[in-house]
Amino acid sequence: MAKPNKDARPSARLPKGLRDIEAAELRAQAAMIDKIRGVYERYGFEPLETPAFEYTDALGKFLPDQDRPNEGVFSLQDEDEQWLSLRYDLTAPLARYVAQNFQTLTKPFRRYAYGNVWRNEKPGPGRYRQFLQFDADTVGADSVAADAEMCMLAADTLEALGIKRGDYVIKVNNRKILDGLLEAIGLGGESNANRRLVVLRAIDKLDRLEPQGVALLLGGGRKDESGDFTKGANLDESQISKVLQMFTVRPSGHAQPTAHRGQPHVDLYETKSGEPATARHIDNLQTIEFIEQSLPFNPTFKAGVDELRSIAALATSAGYDDGRIQIAPSVVRGLEYYTGPVFEAELTFEVKDDKGNPVRFGSVGGGGRYDDLVARFTGQKVSATGFSIGISRLQAALETLGSAKTAALGPVIVTVMEKDRIADYQKMVQTLRDANIRAELYLGNPKKFGKQLEYADKRGSPCVVIQGSDERAKDPPEVTLKDLIEGAKAAAKIEGHEEWKETRPAQVSVKQKDLVKEVRKILARHGG
Amino acid sequence: MAKPNKDARPSARLPKGLRDIEAAELRAQAAMIDKIRGVYERYGFEPLETPAFEYTDALGKFLPDQDRPNEGVFSLQDEDEQWLSLRYDLTAPLARYVAQNFQTLTKPFRRYAYGNVWRNEKPGPGRYRQFLQFDADTVGADSVAADAEMCMLAADTLEALGIKRGDYVIKVNNRKILDGLLEAIGLGGESNANRRLVVLRAIDKLDRLEPQGVALLLGGGRKDESGDFTKGANLDESQISKVLQMFTVRPSGHAQPTAHRGQPHVDLYETKSGEPATARHIDNLQTIEFIEQSLPFNPTFKAGVDELRSIAALATSAGYDDGRIQIAPSVVRGLEYYTGPVFEAELTFEVKDDKGNPVRFGSVGGGGRYDDLVARFTGQKVSATGFSIGISRLQAALETLGSAKTAALGPVIVTVMEKDRIADYQKMVQTLRDANIRAELYLGNPKKFGKQLEYADKRGSPCVVIQGSDERAKDPPEVTLKDLIEGAKAAAKIEGHEEWKETRPAQVSVKQKDLVKEVRKILARHGG
Repeated sequence: MAKPNKDARPSARLPKGLRDIEAAELRAQAAMIDKIRGVYERYGFEPLETPAFEYTDALGKFLPDQDRPNEGVFSLQDEDEQWLSLRYDLTAPLARYVAQNFQTLTKPFRRYAYGNVWRNEKPGPGRYRQFLQFDADTVGADSVAADAEMCMLAADTLEALGIKRGDYVIKVNNRKILDGLLEAIGLGGESNANRRLVVLRAIDKLDRLEPQGVALLLGGGRKDESGDFTKGANLDESQISKVLQMFTVRPSGHAQPTAHRGQPHVDLYETKSGEPATARHIDNLQTIEFIEQSLPFNPTFKAGVDELRSIAALATSAGYDDGRIQIAPSVVRGLEYYTGPVFEAELTFEVKDDKGNPVRFGSVGGGGRYDDLVARFTGQKVSATGFSIGISRLQAALETLGSAKTAALGPVIVTVMEKDRIADYQKMVQTLRDANIRAELYLGNPKKFGKQLEYADKRGSPCVVIQGSDERAKDPPEVTLKDLIEGAKAAAKIEGHEEWKETRPAQVSVKQKDLVKEVRKILARHGG
Repeated sequence: MAKPNKDARPSARLPKGLRDIEAAELRAQAAMIDKIRGVYERYGFEPLETPAFEYTDALGKFLPDQDRPNEGVFSLQDEDEQWLSLRYDLTAPLARYVAQNFQTLTKPFRRYAYGNVWRNEKPGPGRYRQFLQFDADTVGADSVAADAEMCMLAADTLEALGIKRGDYVIKVNNRKILDGLLEAIGLGGESNANRRLVVLRAIDKLDRLEPQGVALLLGGGRKDESGDFTKGANLDESQISKVLQMFTVRPSGHAQPTAHRGQPHVDLYETKSGEPATARHIDNLQTIEFIEQSLPFNPTFKAGVDELRSIAALATSAGYDDGRIQIAPSVVRGLEYYTGPVFEAELTFEVKDDKGNPVRFGSVGGGGRYDDLVARFTGQKVSATGFSIGISRLQAALETLGSAKTAALGPVIVTVMEKDRIADYQKMVQTLRDANIRAELYLGNPKKFGKQLEYADKRGSPCVVIQGSDERAKDPPEVTLKDLIEGAKAAAKIEGHEEWKETRPAQVSVKQKDLVKEVRKILARHGG
């Protein structure tokens, strides 16, 4: 067993891609989760929690943007040498749960879930190997109304978190349109499944790689800055241009796609009149019409267009205009398992980065219909659609909006003036706590009183309670309350230490029996 | 990539020892966590979250009751082939965090944390491999007042959860007393560290194994019912009897220790007068006196007794009598790392099991002082003390008390009478949701109306909204509201289907524009 030992002391560090989350961020996160849960509950979803890991074969491998199909997850072996994997999303465990409990489940089954997921991917700035997701899914509903509702849920959730209309957009596309396009260029059928996936993943990178980068991924492959080579889909030039046409046609000489993505009421592609896309508003019905005309008819494609039309109609009828729920052919979602409508929640407001450059947060969530996931287990097709929020990313965005700040007041600190009277001070603390006031005894070494005040300051304490022999000797006994917030303000105005000592700003002596009442007065002053 | 394939279909199952947690239990759990968090915040603790896994060497191996020192955790390897382990408690990650951030941390550092922990142990009934813990710890406080506060925190937490005074007790002992005892029988010093641990673990099993079973573990070893052999501490007979004496002396012919453990105001051992222990109340100071007299003086032992005396005095002064915080020499806590006071929160009320036999829940949490855990990393001794609650176990106990039930009202269901009017129904749903009413559209196949009502029933829906062509044709248009809860009551009184059809109990037609107002009336009837 490990004992403290100079020769074998472990180093206190975290594995890369993992992090600790401290009080201020956690409080803000808890507040976010409460708000999201409120919306999901209002929509009639019920909570479900599945374990952190499952049998590897039960989870399957459906990682988004995953260029290494056999990696991406953290796996371990149990004592029977069976492989287990940490969940990489909340959808795969849901599919297992539904398959396992299919007979007894009330259908449609509507559940929400939140929890950490883990991905064994290259970490980067703001990209962690453990992160929190918040999902809602409806299982056993064929109706496209279930998909439309997911888009409304997404919009309502962002608004509940304080994101204004116009600062976000829920983009909707349909995998059947993409599948129709791929069929049209000869990539239909089982045997092309893998190539289709490579194409979808390539399109999903339009934002980051620009059309020329995506063209490489659609063709022979692409080497990135670090020298890593990603294999391509091996399409020929005419296939590549047909794929790119649908997403990237725009007036020559105009801005890069990244500058356009996410802008509400503006679509990516050139309008028929030839005006630059940025110059005019294209509504959902016009967009659908454009999509319909941009490709030759095939049944898959047609089904996708019809579903988009229904979603647009349901959204409009329920009061969601196309600034909030927007048909957008550029949305792909890199996940293999989607079979119908796909959604993406994007933040469209701009913030400045450290260097003053404008940046957009972009996608903070997404989802879609996945009708084949339960069939993996049962062979029986079960319709399902869902929406997932990436909490950390959204929280970072909210912070820049100033909506995520929850400045909690620290506890009242009862200081220790006489070391042999700890029991008396502890009693004061309990008196405050019994009155539901956040309070604690100073538990460090009480020798230096200054250290106690410094501690209270660092903890964001609104006030400290002091009782030395003088206060105690009074009849009836007194305590001194020092308002640290007022005190700091007053001290800023005072010239020298002498003046401070004489005036003792924001300090008051009160009867000990009035402790709770007097502390409450100070807390009220600071909104506590 | 896995595709639905009849030949290679995975089975939908969970690894043993893991489970899904469904809505009712999760809601109750969330309510518990809120209450516990409320108390911990009131005590001035701040939240911290560390990741689910860490480097194996950073976590160390300090599993309680772990008879297989090299197992007990779930481990995996990262791409650099370094070993990582899922956390088995929240204390080891805290020690890593404190060591890593020691310079910048405000000390004493007071943090709370809750989250899942994982143990690769034999699962059993109610014993899972993933479970939720809720901890509070104070790091950097030498004062025994920090330990006393943990006991008060435990008591306040149980009461906040609805457990009455007298139904629980926080038992306190001191590892130094045990260490003093072990020194006295010749088990002091570094070289005996392992044997001491075996002895402590054996004592910790008094409840389950009775003195004779513990005697085997203190001696040559013990074979359990399944035939598994556990090695013993190899003490001789006189050593064994000295160890057992302190915990198990009682009048001959009296009840088994299990029947006594946890009973407030009663201690385990015989009093000096020779009266049976069950016959009279022994208060904390008498208990300490008894401990002091039961063993020959040694400095470790003496220090432990003095600390117990301080804790008893602090508890009494803060208003916690010895029915709530009780000095109890039988408390061991099997963890190697404790160095001073140890606590155990026990539920003392009796419930009947399935066979009508009385059972006690026993321990639902515990903790203690562990001054060496940060030193594992830094070499520098850092004082620390903490308390941990096992949420699932406590929740099971609360359920039997009826305190954990939160019967949530299901959503209002808007039914689908005319398939081509989904958009209109969806709009009603959004109108209800906008008024903060939990509502949803029936998303299953609407063909059979009975199925829709059945669904609403199963979801615990308070009412359904119906609009067929009749209601729609009215001027102004109407909707029918069916109160399912009243309806079920009325139906129970009605004789035949014909009478039911005629009276249509608990059903009302209202103007569509009054939808929200009228639904609210029904919700109000059912406390929604």
